[in-house]
Amino acid sequence: MDRSRLTELLAAVQSGACPIDEALRRLRALPFEDLEFAKVDHHRALRNGFPEVVLGDGKTADQVVAIAERLTAAGGNVLVTRLAPEAAVRLLDAGPGFEYHAAARLACRRASGAAVTGRGTILVVSAGTADVPVAEEAALSAEVMGNRVERLYDVGIAGLHRLLDRRERLWEAAVLIVVAGMEGALPSVVGGLVDRPVIAVPTSIGYGTSFGGLAALLGMLNTCAAGVVVVNIDNGFGAAAAASRINHPPG
Amino acid sequence: MDRSRLTELLAAVQSGACPIDEALRRLRALPFEDLEFAKVDHHRALRNGFPEVVLGDGKTADQVVAIAERLTAAGGNVLVTRLAPEAAVRLLDAGPGFEYHAAARLACRRASGAAVTGRGTILVVSAGTADVPVAEEAALSAEVMGNRVERLYDVGIAGLHRLLDRRERLWEAAVLIVVAGMEGALPSVVGGLVDRPVIAVPTSIGYGTSFGGLAALLGMLNTCAAGVVVVNIDNGFGAAAAASRINHPPG
Amino acid sequence: MDRSRLTELLAAVQSGACPIDEALRRLRALPFEDLEFAKVDHHRALRNGFPEVVLGDGKTADQVVAIAERLTAAGGNVLVTRLAPEAAVRLLDAGPGFEYHAAARLACRRASGAAVTGRGTILVVSAGTADVPVAEEAALSAEVMGNRVERLYDVGIAGLHRLLDRRERLWEAAVLIVVAGMEGALPSVVGGLVDRPVIAVPTSIGYGTSFGGLAALLGMLNTCAAGVVVVNIDNGFGAAAAASRINHPPG
Amino acid sequence: MDRSRLTELLAAVQSGACPIDEALRRLRALPFEDLEFAKVDHHRALRNGFPEVVLGDGKTADQVVAIAERLTAAGGNVLVTRLAPEAAVRLLDAGPGFEYHAAARLACRRASGAAVTGRGTILVVSAGTADVPVAEEAALSAEVMGNRVERLYDVGIAGLHRLLDRRERLWEAAVLIVVAGMEGALPSVVGGLVDRPVIAVPTSIGYGTSFGGLAALLGMLNTCAAGVVVVNIDNGFGAAAAASRINHPPG
Amino acid sequence: MDRSRLTELLAAVQSGACPIDEALRRLRALPFEDLEFAKVDHHRALRNGFPEVVLGDGKTADQVVAIAERLTAAGGNVLVTRLAPEAAVRLLDAGPGFEYHAAARLACRRASGAAVTGRGTILVVSAGTADVPVAEEAALSAEVMGNRVERLYDVGIAGLHRLLDRRERLWEAAVLIVVAGMEGALPSVVGGLVDRPVIAVPTSIGYGTSFGGLAALLGMLNTCAAGVVVVNIDNGFGAAAAASRINHPPG
Amino acid sequence: MDRSRLTELLAAVQSGACPIDEALRRLRALPFEDLEFAKVDHHRALRNGFPEVVLGDGKTADQVVAIAERLTAAGGNVLVTRLAPEAAVRLLDAGPGFEYHAAARLACRRASGAAVTGRGTILVVSAGTADVPVAEEAALSAEVMGNRVERLYDVGIAGLHRLLDRRERLWEAAVLIVVAGMEGALPSVVGGLVDRPVIAVPTSIGYGTSFGGLAALLGMLNTCAAGVVVVNIDNGFGAAAAASRINHPPG
Amino acid sequence: MDRSRLTELLAAVQSGACPIDEALRRLRALPFEDLEFAKVDHHRALRNGFPEVVLGDGKTADQVVAIAERLTAAGGNVLVTRLAPEAAVRLLDAGPGFEYHAAARLACRRASGAAVTGRGTILVVSAGTADVPVAEEAALSAEVMGNRVERLYDVGIAGLHRLLDRRERLWEAAVLIVVAGMEGALPSVVGGLVDRPVIAVPTSIGYGTSFGGLAALLGMLNTCAAGVVVVNIDNGFGAAAAASRINHPPG
Amino acid sequence: MDRSRLTELLAAVQSGACPIDEALRRLRALPFEDLEFAKVDHHRALRNGFPEVVLGDGKTADQVVAIAERLTAAGGNVLVTRLAPEAAVRLLDAGPGFEYHAAARLACRRASGAAVTGRGTILVVSAGTADVPVAEEAALSAEVMGNRVERLYDVGIAGLHRLLDRRERLWEAAVLIVVAGMEGALPSVVGGLVDRPVIAVPTSIGYGTSFGGLAALLGMLNTCAAGVVVVNIDNGFGAAAAASRINHPPG
Repeated sequence: MDRSRLTELLAAVQSGACPIDEALRRLRALPFEDLEFAKVDHHRALRNGFPEVVLGDGKTADQVVAIAERLTAAGGNVLVTRLAPEAAVRLLDAGPGFEYHAAARLACRRASGAAVTGRGTILVVSAGTADVPVAEEAALSAEVMGNRVERLYDVGIAGLHRLLDRRERLWEAAVLIVVAGMEGALPSVVGGLVDRPVIAVPTSIGYGTSFGGLAALLGMLNTCAAGVVVVNIDNGFGAAAAASRINHPPG
Repeated sequence: MDRSRLTELLAAVQSGACPIDEALRRLRALPFEDLEFAKVDHHRALRNGFPEVVLGDGKTADQVVAIAERLTAAGGNVLVTRLAPEAAVRLLDAGPGFEYHAAARLACRRASGAAVTGRGTILVVSAGTADVPVAEEAALSAEVMGNRVERLYDVGIAGLHRLLDRRERLWEAAVLIVVAGMEGALPSVVGGLVDRPVIAVPTSIGYGTSFGGLAALLGMLNTCAAGVVVVNIDNGFGAAAAASRINHPPG
Repeated sequence: MDRSRLTELLAAVQSGACPIDEALRRLRALPFEDLEFAKVDHHRALRNGFPEVVLGDGKTADQVVAIAERLTAAGGNVLVTRLAPEAAVRLLDAGPGFEYHAAARLACRRASGAAVTGRGTILVVSAGTADVPVAEEAALSAEVMGNRVERLYDVGIAGLHRLLDRRERLWEAAVLIVVAGMEGALPSVVGGLVDRPVIAVPTSIGYGTSFGGLAALLGMLNTCAAGVVVVNIDNGFGAAAAASRINHPPG
Repeated sequence: MDRSRLTELLAAVQSGACPIDEALRRLRALPFEDLEFAKVDHHRALRNGFPEVVLGDGKTADQVVAIAERLTAAGGNVLVTRLAPEAAVRLLDAGPGFEYHAAARLACRRASGAAVTGRGTILVVSAGTADVPVAEEAALSAEVMGNRVERLYDVGIAGLHRLLDRRERLWEAAVLIVVAGMEGALPSVVGGLVDRPVIAVPTSIGYGTSFGGLAALLGMLNTCAAGVVVVNIDNGFGAAAAASRINHPPG
Repeated sequence: MDRSRLTELLAAVQSGACPIDEALRRLRALPFEDLEFAKVDHHRALRNGFPEVVLGDGKTADQVVAIAERLTAAGGNVLVTRLAPEAAVRLLDAGPGFEYHAAARLACRRASGAAVTGRGTILVVSAGTADVPVAEEAALSAEVMGNRVERLYDVGIAGLHRLLDRRERLWEAAVLIVVAGMEGALPSVVGGLVDRPVIAVPTSIGYGTSFGGLAALLGMLNTCAAGVVVVNIDNGFGAAAAASRINHPPG
Repeated sequence: MDRSRLTELLAAVQSGACPIDEALRRLRALPFEDLEFAKVDHHRALRNGFPEVVLGDGKTADQVVAIAERLTAAGGNVLVTRLAPEAAVRLLDAGPGFEYHAAARLACRRASGAAVTGRGTILVVSAGTADVPVAEEAALSAEVMGNRVERLYDVGIAGLHRLLDRRERLWEAAVLIVVAGMEGALPSVVGGLVDRPVIAVPTSIGYGTSFGGLAALLGMLNTCAAGVVVVNIDNGFGAAAAASRINHPPG
Repeated sequence: MDRSRLTELLAAVQSGACPIDEALRRLRALPFEDLEFAKVDHHRALRNGFPEVVLGDGKTADQVVAIAERLTAAGGNVLVTRLAPEAAVRLLDAGPGFEYHAAARLACRRASGAAVTGRGTILVVSAGTADVPVAEEAALSAEVMGNRVERLYDVGIAGLHRLLDRRERLWEAAVLIVVAGMEGALPSVVGGLVDRPVIAVPTSIGYGTSFGGLAALLGMLNTCAAGVVVVNIDNGFGAAAAASRINHPPG
Repeated sequence: MDRSRLTELLAAVQSGACPIDEALRRLRALPFEDLEFAKVDHHRALRNGFPEVVLGDGKTADQVVAIAERLTAAGGNVLVTRLAPEAAVRLLDAGPGFEYHAAARLACRRASGAAVTGRGTILVVSAGTADVPVAEEAALSAEVMGNRVERLYDVGIAGLHRLLDRRERLWEAAVLIVVAGMEGALPSVVGGLVDRPVIAVPTSIGYGTSFGGLAALLGMLNTCAAGVVVVNIDNGFGAAAAASRINHPPG
């Protein structure tokens, strides 16, 4: 029940056309979102350029194309994560304006007029080359969400000088997303070098006791550095969503 | 080697008092922090009111008192986390200006002139009464770090109306810290209601398969809500540190 | 040894045709089920329309077809769960009356005259589209077991209004089966909204720390809502069996 | 906002005392529970005799006594679970009408006039004597919730005849709660003997690889018997809540 | 219903005193154990001297004493495992004939006339001195069950010569119980040296990643030696029971 | 250095051809197995008909064929476990006398004159049809090792009467191998019905929280029945080896 | 900024061409490695012949070839680990001087003039034939790093005499790498026989509760032998790197 | 049978006093260690000053004192690890020459004339003050084993400059023992800075998901730095034993 229907109901009460008991009964069943929630979503989209997001995993190419077409018609940015190459081919054939990033397994459509709305720069840091797909999912997602994004890749802690050499770039970022597999120690080191929020993303890169990213995750959760927070293994998109919220402060 | 000593060295080079080879030798052994790192820490403290932090766990009362006295002498805010009551008695006896919050097992000293420097409000939300100690560790820590903090406790998802009833308070926060044990689902629900960053803190509250907070942690890492990040189990301080960094944007 | 054979034996004792010692020896070896157990099974089938169930997993197509034909001959409802599409083709070719539901990987044969015998409605709720196969296994199984089933899909807690908007449907159900992957919080939320039994089904949907459904399972076991019980990961059939027992109260 | 206040508002609209815009504004902020949720709770209490429940764990004796007094004043049944003996002494001193069951660590107050409202009998079955505390938590909780409860203890599967000997008692129950530690196989055996819902409660009884009840839990989740559902380890109360919901069918 | 009562019933049928229908009704409710199971237990006791066993863990001293007195009255061997010293004092005071082995936390009463009934020797081998309590639980239990037992302690694999030096003793045993904590490799080594059954008992001795005996258990389950079987962590009694069954072959 | 070479050495000492110092040096380097170990192996083979065993897993078809040919030439029984069908085709082509059991993935060659040497019967019991491959690996292995083997399949505990109906067959076995997946409760039930050693084999059959057989394994390790021992998941061969050792008592 | 650029800067200060403030600014941004770290790497390569290492896992054949060509141009030893056969074919085609070891999945190029620089012999010991690929990764890696390597394979502890027979070879090694899957007990046995450092490498060989090498890893971490250290599962290269560091003592 | 008894036997053969058959029989039963193993131990002690080690854990004060007295009588260095303060008081009373280090829970007796026999310096590095007890167990143990030991404590990676500032001390060590709890990343950082062997010791310091040191252990096993090996959680002694073996190269 949107505002107009609610106005209509109250007008009917005011005019006596609807008795109070009947109004009570209809208000009780009032759909919740009609009051408030849908508006939130709209506000958010207007302010942040936050895209509609489709999780490609576990959907057929047909389903992805159908959803993407509907979202495209609505006119905003569209982001499809974890999209297999075969489904991506279908998507690019079907709808104009989509680009596909194979390493990140991510497709997006940036609405014309999409602009950078975030305040500062989100810096995506990654430890090894094998972590790049997750780092790119984060970086591209953050861009589609209206953020200026920079990348600093292949600065794992075994060769610490590579990281320390770029410490000025670390200091210039407003938010940092740090992506690492294996022992997952990079976010701890970065967190000790900066005074900005660090979002740590464990990846499933490794073997043996990496247990599909569990070792990296535990390393990040047990960080001795302040200001480090963590998302799920390989969840580049989730890191980008949090970073973008941070980079779009209210007011 | 701080700036003044470095200036002195360069002046000696300029004047010819120090040959270039000798300068090279001294620069090679130059302590790293002299160049840059210490300054970062100072800048951070000046700008954020970020306190010196002492982890009380695993230290004797004597050690805690000694460290706290040294930090107090330095003049800034001091925060002691996970401090046992017996050690707290010693600390309050020893140094003026300390207050102890028993539920949160946290002592702090707020330097005179300490002010709110954070931009917005950090809202600390907790699911059950048993989660309050961790929530208070987060709330008090964030206050000492210079943030305006509000609390919204006992709004677990089994009685959803308690949470929904206060949704306007959720919408007013700049950052949210959401503390929950057992199944840890509250951050997911809150993350779906707001468009601000949500820092989820799992607590060790529960029994059986809660596995000391693991169930809550996994629930939070696997959240289907965007914008939710996670810290270690019972890590109220860590959540506050991250929230404070978010609430003190650069520039 | 069924009742008639037992009667016969006792008659032989009565007539003296069978000496007591011989009767003792035969009674000692008396097959257990002849006394009581088989009857139970028959009673249950008559009263509930409970089908014969075949687990397709780990059986060859030949084995499935052979078993299904034998059960069909016996005349009741037949349910084949976790049936691969290739085996399903064979089954549909072989025996008339079977239908196959590809998403749920489930085949069934509803005996003519099969009727709804359950008292109330079983409502199957699912969180995401990826959970639908498990939800359908539950829903279809419950139907074959003689229950009226309704479906409420794609009402995950990240968009809480979708669920709350249908809360009247939740209140009308006699039993609820709630299917969710990832953090598995939906049963907790539903359990707090209704006063009926809620059977939670974790699914293996998710990645990283979902650990193949373990995160969802732990979330459900640690629920803070009363009246929620849990079955194995992806066990839609098991949830239906329990729900059907609840929906067929004695007497 | 309860019904009367809502009626008042609508009357003000009807009379013209409240303009429609003002009414819209007030309805938007309408507390959710005013519409519907609180009533649900009341209905439930009236119909089921469902008690107010206090989790004693992690509360001081003072807190427990204070909460219990407030609930007693409200007049219904009160149940305090996981209550330490020392706190129980305080509770029994403070408020009349409370009884304490030491083995189950459970206190309850049965309001005068409390009656059996459940349809059938809930049978609580336990494997070993060490499981009795959890079994008693289930049994006593179910009684306070208005159910007729019977007990069948010490019928573990290593001496199968003890269980089979009482199989008629199993067949007479409307719902069964089966409590077992160690390998947790009893619910599977019981589930194969009856056609009623079986709620399995793993206990933390055991050593070595029982892992605090995990072995029993896994055994129950992987049951090959249909109609068995599971609750958290040692969660006798949770099993009772679910059983009571099943034993109070709608209509 | 024992043999005599069954005979009586059949005689009543034969004589016509009991009609067939009444006999059928009584046979249906016939307690299962009356037919067969109790006899098994008796046969076993007669042949093996298998004792009555009481698990002391989780029982009060009063309960243990009461049970032990009842069993003593029945006249056979009695074994009480995992018995705390305080309860043992009570037991020795109460009943004559009990001895208590403090290291093994085991009390037993050997009925006069109890003899060695097992065919060969059970050799109990242990790796370290810290494993001796579990080894003694196994050794003493096996003795009470009527076996000749020898002990070979402190022959861990880090000093392999200590074991190899006694290999003739290994070859003389009919069954071997090998007890080890930490990495649990001793049963593998022993299993490769003998051609007799080896029952491996992991102990909870160790620290860090021993995880309370899990490392030892996994080592034993993954043994590359043939003929090694495993029991639960610290389950000396269980190993003895299996070894005694092996050492009392039928016929 | 076999007996003859050792004799030769001593003779050389006796004759003075070899000085004592030289003899000492040669004895120090004496290969260990020459003294004793090889003989053990021979004794075992002669007495038990214990076959040479090849683990097919992780070997190429070429490797398996080469090893099998060498062993065949040596003349005894040969057993190849975990052998893929493709490699089996190669093996049957290469060497006469091999038979392949596809379900058990096991090939064997029974030397002419191979006889039953075990004392009693080994009974292999399995819970579900999906457990049959592991049960067959156990049964066939035990046969090749010279034991009389009987099979009792598909007697899972959900239909307890199927098992109880055959309890006389259980009582006739000298050793029992009980194979079960899912909750793994069958060995506990069987262990309570017999007084013979029970070797429990968990299988990887199941889904969700069966965790590849872990649930069944834990169930078996935590059995409340005496006399049950356990081997690794799916280790039918290991169970057979232990059972055969038990069934070939010394003397 | 290498030494020459630093010298240049100081000369400019000395000459007055660069004011002190400007020098300070440039020194602050001084790349860390210019001071010291790069030299370390060079020293290490010169002294040890330590190769450049490429992890083939997760790189395309194109990427591997490109990196290998660049390293070859630099003139030292090159090692490519975990290289798939298809990529190896490409690599051997592209660059002269590479050899590929299929079992170890390892390619290497030994620069002409590469010599043995390590002091003693590294002995690689393995338990079973299935462990050979990991053992060969260790052995070949150690050779390319300039060590004399010997191999002792297939000496698992189930046939202890095979190992004891070669104990003189164990005693001659300066460092031992011991590779084992399943229960991983071989390093404990070896560690008790020698007084040299033992690097234990668990392999993922096994099934069931080997959990992909976890059982072996835990066995090795819990060793009761002194002087045993552990690397990640299947990490032959890591063991070689540590062994080579040990075998190239300073000075 | 030591060398003299063996010589005696051979002399008897030579003289004809002992027939060859009798000599063969006695040689077959020859205790293994008489040939070779005991000598190894003696050689090791002479060369390395390796102490006799007593694990205090799980021994009574009486047992510890008795063992220590016997070892002291033998004259070498004695090391007692994990010794409780109460037992230490007893030990110091009983035997002269013992010192007790409370933080490390370690007692030792350094034989007069004990000297530094190791080649280089062992550097013990620790991350936090809470890790010092384990670091001291390592440092003191290494000293008693005859090594020169240096300490570098409280250089955790969150304040990287503290570590980098002392990098010259890192470069001077022959072997490094790096002790860290929480995320356990320090060994990875150190391993990238040096070209010497690094022995990583995870500690049980941390909370929540540190899981008693498991997070640190996994971080260390998954290190991306070459040359890092790992020991069990809190195993300072084990690290010292391996470091001492490395620091006492053969020849």
